[in-house]
Amino acid sequence: MSLAREIRLARMPGDRVSADDFVMAETPLPALQDGDVRVRNMWMSVDPYMRLPLTGRKGVRPGLSVGDPMFGAAVGVVEESRAPAMPAGALVLSQKGWRDRFVAPASDLQALPVSDISPSWYLGVLGLSGMTAYPGVEEVLRPVAGETLFVSAAAGAVGSLACQLARRRGVRVLGSAGSDDKVAWLKDELGLDGAVNYRRQDVGAFLKAECPNGLDCYFDNVGGATLDAALGAMRPGGRIGLCGAISQYNDDNYRAGPADFFTIIEKGLVVTGFNAGLAAPRGPEIAAALIGLLQSGELRWKETVVEGLENAPAAFASLFEGENVGKLIVRI
Amino acid sequence: MSLAREIRLARMPGDRVSADDFVMAETPLPALQDGDVRVRNMWMSVDPYMRLPLTGRKGVRPGLSVGDPMFGAAVGVVEESRAPAMPAGALVLSQKGWRDRFVAPASDLQALPVSDISPSWYLGVLGLSGMTAYPGVEEVLRPVAGETLFVSAAAGAVGSLACQLARRRGVRVLGSAGSDDKVAWLKDELGLDGAVNYRRQDVGAFLKAECPNGLDCYFDNVGGATLDAALGAMRPGGRIGLCGAISQYNDDNYRAGPADFFTIIEKGLVVTGFNAGLAAPRGPEIAAALIGLLQSGELRWKETVVEGLENAPAAFASLFEGENVGKLIVRI
Repeated sequence: MSLAREIRLARMPGDRVSADDFVMAETPLPALQDGDVRVRNMWMSVDPYMRLPLTGRKGVRPGLSVGDPMFGAAVGVVEESRAPAMPAGALVLSQKGWRDRFVAPASDLQALPVSDISPSWYLGVLGLSGMTAYPGVEEVLRPVAGETLFVSAAAGAVGSLACQLARRRGVRVLGSAGSDDKVAWLKDELGLDGAVNYRRQDVGAFLKAECPNGLDCYFDNVGGATLDAALGAMRPGGRIGLCGAISQYNDDNYRAGPADFFTIIEKGLVVTGFNAGLAAPRGPEIAAALIGLLQSGELRWKETVVEGLENAPAAFASLFEGENVGKLIVRI
Repeated sequence: MSLAREIRLARMPGDRVSADDFVMAETPLPALQDGDVRVRNMWMSVDPYMRLPLTGRKGVRPGLSVGDPMFGAAVGVVEESRAPAMPAGALVLSQKGWRDRFVAPASDLQALPVSDISPSWYLGVLGLSGMTAYPGVEEVLRPVAGETLFVSAAAGAVGSLACQLARRRGVRVLGSAGSDDKVAWLKDELGLDGAVNYRRQDVGAFLKAECPNGLDCYFDNVGGATLDAALGAMRPGGRIGLCGAISQYNDDNYRAGPADFFTIIEKGLVVTGFNAGLAAPRGPEIAAALIGLLQSGELRWKETVVEGLENAPAAFASLFEGENVGKLIVRI
């Protein structure tokens, strides 16, 4: 019987996620039954939402217990198959967690097409990131030429897509990020009209200077102080799209609302939540639209790659320190 | 020189507004200049929003100082005029605060038509209350037959209008109120499909029992725990209209968001703020629509009348104890 490596939760994270909160373990791979496949993972995703079950609080998913393997999506190749529809060599997307190999029923997995698109993209622009950014810009906020959109975590996976989708619509785009390098990347590479390093500058003052008549739209990935700054800068009738609150995920009370919530009433704002799960029924059409934009060069997709399953915990922890540009991905 | 009576802020209210926070004073009435009128107030409004400047915190209006007269709307009659367009005997709506008489430029005032409508209604259903409830139901939430709408403070001025407007649209309407008498009134007089006494029952449990598949729409007058209960009961994609947070107005942090704000992201909710000020440009058309509904009997307007300017502070304080049914109004 062969063994697989998997990463388990070693202890519940404290105020900050640390690589030491996780431990590598070996686990036996069972023999294949009819309908099963054995998969070798090649790419694995680490995403901010994975922080949410790692508390005792109510979250989007049931809480994880110490000793449980970490959950999440990966792309791999079928090594051995007892499922005729998914033969050896097939490329598959799975939700089997942080591990290098696994055995599972083929019906649990999604076969991916073989194309010139990197398989890793199904964990980002054609996965969670795209299924968040696209509906956020194209369905929720729908900014138009003449309007200004502010995007927080603009250099991140979702944010960098949101910025580009909005620019395509002729919108003036502003962004925030956590380093001067990222701010330069946003302006020089993504062509943003303005960007602010939230660690060194006052985001509220930046927005008020850039938008003296008020901000039209805000795409919120981070919550917390940046959401409050945006609330203060919005014009009456402005729109806010909410898809994440990463600045709060290390807090015990990540579910809490902004300090200046009452501004929504005063300014008559429209605040809409969205997430990739809710967009899933429209996944194929959204993916088709994104593939078209990627192939035409209208959309660029940036990945930061970390090598080795053993480095996934450190990569995950770095998400909350704001160190990645684009999508953080682990190559196994 | 004649004297007018006015009510001033005697001290900044503490955790609860009290009649003792105010004091009656006499103030001289100046002689009329060209363009001025002297008005004798007949009806005066006390409204929850008046609590907001009575703190040191940022609010919808500049904060009031101790010794300042209280602000707000009143309806009165012109006693003496040096403004040809607004002769003695004219009925006028003013924003000159809690006082029995005043002198002001006619251009500051709004002449009201003489009709079979009680002048006091311009302080409620044809004023702030109607300009909040109507856009909230007809423009923001737009509930349709087959949907369920929950209204908090449903027996209040805005809430009782919102309930009736929604019922006209064929919507199933649920409401909350702070006494068994109000709950009975909501069911027996306004025809609500269900109502809950939030002081004695668990609002979240009530909503989940009434809406096993999730609540479609929530019209929020109160914020706080009731908003959190509604967030927990909403269906994915549900709509929330926010126009007030009276349960928080006695708090120092009345601007704060709900504890379970993150639910907006998880469920993809649409949360829209609105208020009477933002609806002002559409005021005439909204008033015309409301007058039509009142005259046809499709809409009923309930007032609770307090007699005497000297009793306005106690009436105002009672708003936050949930004692009034319909619109609380002071007859001078």
